[in-house]
Amino acid sequence: MSKAVKVIVALGGNALQESKGPGTAEAQLEVAKRTCEYIADINAAGYEIAIVHGNGPQVGRIILASETAKNTTPVMPFDVCSAMSQGYIGYHVQQALQDALRKRGRADLPVVTLITQVAVDPEDPAFQNPTKPIGPFYSEEEAKELAKTKGYTVKEDAGRGWRRVVASPIPKKIVELDTVKRLWDSSIVITCGGGGIPVVPNGEGGYDGTAAVIDKDFAASLLARSLDADILLILTEVEKVSLNFRKPDQKDLDHMTVEEARNFIEEGHFAPGSMLPKVKAAVDFAVSAPGRKAIITSLYKAVDALQGKTGTVIEA
Amino acid sequence: MSKAVKVIVALGGNALQESKGPGTAEAQLEVAKRTCEYIADINAAGYEIAIVHGNGPQVGRIILASETAKNTTPVMPFDVCSAMSQGYIGYHVQQALQDALRKRGRADLPVVTLITQVAVDPEDPAFQNPTKPIGPFYSEEEAKELAKTKGYTVKEDAGRGWRRVVASPIPKKIVELDTVKRLWDSSIVITCGGGGIPVVPNGEGGYDGTAAVIDKDFAASLLARSLDADILLILTEVEKVSLNFRKPDQKDLDHMTVEEARNFIEEGHFAPGSMLPKVKAAVDFAVSAPGRKAIITSLYKAVDALQGKTGTVIEA
Repeated sequence: MSKAVKVIVALGGNALQESKGPGTAEAQLEVAKRTCEYIADINAAGYEIAIVHGNGPQVGRIILASETAKNTTPVMPFDVCSAMSQGYIGYHVQQALQDALRKRGRADLPVVTLITQVAVDPEDPAFQNPTKPIGPFYSEEEAKELAKTKGYTVKEDAGRGWRRVVASPIPKKIVELDTVKRLWDSSIVITCGGGGIPVVPNGEGGYDGTAAVIDKDFAASLLARSLDADILLILTEVEKVSLNFRKPDQKDLDHMTVEEARNFIEEGHFAPGSMLPKVKAAVDFAVSAPGRKAIITSLYKAVDALQGKTGTVIEA
Repeated sequence: MSKAVKVIVALGGNALQESKGPGTAEAQLEVAKRTCEYIADINAAGYEIAIVHGNGPQVGRIILASETAKNTTPVMPFDVCSAMSQGYIGYHVQQALQDALRKRGRADLPVVTLITQVAVDPEDPAFQNPTKPIGPFYSEEEAKELAKTKGYTVKEDAGRGWRRVVASPIPKKIVELDTVKRLWDSSIVITCGGGGIPVVPNGEGGYDGTAAVIDKDFAASLLARSLDADILLILTEVEKVSLNFRKPDQKDLDHMTVEEARNFIEEGHFAPGSMLPKVKAAVDFAVSAPGRKAIITSLYKAVDALQGKTGTVIEA
């Protein structure tokens, strides 16, 4: 029997919640069900997978609810909100994927969400310049009060009000990696949700929670490297990565060498917070060992891309 | 090498959050750290364990925050709140237990929380008479509006206002059991948190979420039976089960046969919502196969009780 190709699937937030949708759990479950049909197809095509999902809209709403209810019940810290979002999203994906697999005769294949901590370096320069807005808008007065009483970093957000900002440091270690390793050849594991619950070393060999947003594509890349996966599959809204995106001379790419990708990054082709982290995460994986490749494509084209028919391949 | 004794530990809500405490995540983490020292001692004494925890105060606050913020962000359904509480509590227990194990030279032993669905029977008679109050208090008018618009069952609560009530059905199946089985001889698994995310069969072989509170001791008993554990260890606030509890003629029990336990239940010795479900869960496990026993004791006496020095043993 040939060894199955092992794929880490990084699932964008849009694959779980429509950005213009109502943001209800019921709507999310419907989207998760549609998404999981495509994920189950990847499995049915013979690939072994683990799943990393985003959590932007969901953790945003959890924080918003917690902050809004602050006079009624204590505000939850960021790491706890992140853990709650892993439970929320993991549950939906797990239930929906179990259903989709069953329809394909694979009720025997376990699907499970692992609550996963991802360690970052407290000396990561990102902590010196937090940029990721989270939670509700505040008045300038409220924001400055929160900065004083809770130590939040707050910034004025493009004339819309003040918001808390947190750092987006590079993920260094997946704390629960051993369990992922143990399970992933016999199960579909959902792990590092939202990039992982952000933690920093506590100086005694363990970890403490921290307020930070870990990019889920970077976490997926770290996971793929740590598990010695064959392919990092980053699913997004477009079928291929483009140069001059949405300009008259847009050019879709079938393939990038790592060298080319780095040059395109240098030339500013990819938008920060959008395609840029995906290409960077892809490069990080592709250069990490011989034979590893990353693919960026849409959810709908995932199987075709794995079979070499579409998508953008990044390899050394 | 002799086979290690396998123990399912059912951890009461008070082992995670002080009932009179502030209800903050920070306070919970402190309690979880103290609790996990005792849990790590159980492992150090040579027992293999899996952990089921309660979630009453935590899911109550999650629902409260969600309902309080309802004009700002959509209210989360009960099953999702339950999933979020598994993420929240599991994260804290996992982090704290990893620390406590490391101090005992067992940094190699993985600890992981599994998001776990527990199926109940939609025909369970409990659904005909929901009794478990959840979430905030409402005015009569608000309550009746919610009953009409959302289908909530609402009840007047001892003159304090109106509340939503949900059923507390018997757990029938642990959906993610295969994964627990696969992990638990090499890891400490935290599963069925809060009794499990309540789901009902969807008629197609899968499951849908429902609003119900599954008793965590019943879930732990089901888990212990499903895993063929040796001991169900139910940790609560008292060292032993008592007859005539808190009366002048209180009598602490070292041992109950299943027969005796059933008679004491019949005679009304155990308080519903408190000791009664624990004794029932213990009986269910003890009668399920030869050699199985349940122990009810306090967190602090757990190792002593496992070694036969204290606690109340229930066996056939």
